[in-house]
Amino acid sequence: MKEEIPVSKANRLVNHGPVILVTSQFKEKTNIITLAWQMPVSHKPMLIAISIAKSHFSHDMVKGSGEFAVNVPNVNLLSQVHYCGTTSGRDIDKFARSGLTTLPAQKINPPLIAECIGHIECRLQNMYPVGDHSVFVGEVLAASVEEGLFDGCWKLDEPRAKSLHHLGGNLYTTPDNILEAD
Amino acid sequence: MKEEIPVSKANRLVNHGPVILVTSQFKEKTNIITLAWQMPVSHKPMLIAISIAKSHFSHDMVKGSGEFAVNVPNVNLLSQVHYCGTTSGRDIDKFARSGLTTLPAQKINPPLIAECIGHIECRLQNMYPVGDHSVFVGEVLAASVEEGLFDGCWKLDEPRAKSLHHLGGNLYTTPDNILEAD
Repeated sequence: MKEEIPVSKANRLVNHGPVILVTSQFKEKTNIITLAWQMPVSHKPMLIAISIAKSHFSHDMVKGSGEFAVNVPNVNLLSQVHYCGTTSGRDIDKFARSGLTTLPAQKINPPLIAECIGHIECRLQNMYPVGDHSVFVGEVLAASVEEGLFDGCWKLDEPRAKSLHHLGGNLYTTPDNILEAD
Repeated sequence: MKEEIPVSKANRLVNHGPVILVTSQFKEKTNIITLAWQMPVSHKPMLIAISIAKSHFSHDMVKGSGEFAVNVPNVNLLSQVHYCGTTSGRDIDKFARSGLTTLPAQKINPPLIAECIGHIECRLQNMYPVGDHSVFVGEVLAASVEEGLFDGCWKLDEPRAKSLHHLGGNLYTTPDNILEAD
């Protein structure tokens, strides 16, 4: 079950730098792309930035539709995450192939990914060509989490709250415990 | 001891989403700011983006000087990281107060932080006002690591290679082991 969280807390879903699965929908096609390059960029308004290679299919889908969803996978989705990061939606239906399933979003057209533990629905606010990528800045319209895993921060004592972080190539890592600073 | 790594691998130092300590130098002052909001944004050229609140001292120092260094702290620097993220360099000398020490950079004026395990020297390529922050895009001029901790990816079997990741407030986490995708 999903529960909504305040838009003002959406940055906390990705603040620790996990890989994300970005979903987009344009001209009857739906796509998923795995991205390690994401960061919140503003609190008021709540804005999230993602960087997508200009050559990627999702680049033109997000540009064309003006919407995208950020989905946070947990460590159990390692093989799906790597699959969606190493294949192109130009040729295949990544939902069908990966076994990931759709969940309707509240405020945007692209579906969420049911198996993910965090969801941020974004309307494209601006886009900046930067080197061989474009940085897409999305205004957060809604955010939700898998029930029981988030209480303002991810509850890492719960194994299902553990995200994936991309080291490079086919290597990933996942968070250990929570550390409290003085 | 530090060893240089190819600029083309600099993204791998921050790809997994660690907090960073950004150093800057402007008008005889040197500063450190802790940032969770960072991401690589391009391979060719190698570009790194950081987001700094418009109200912060480092914002105007990076804008004014056109240079910054990204330093990757490890888990042993938790208290210094939190200190540098919750104080302003307008009032204090964060190097003196935190006990962190400077190391000359190769290509830029701001010093590196000797105690950190990764270093990326950047020349400001562009800056974008986005909400209540600015996104600074830096071109990577040089990158280096603490010897023995990086071989194209962080060697997380070595405890000193473990970074810090910010969950929110005073809560952080650090990576567990390396996971290999099929």
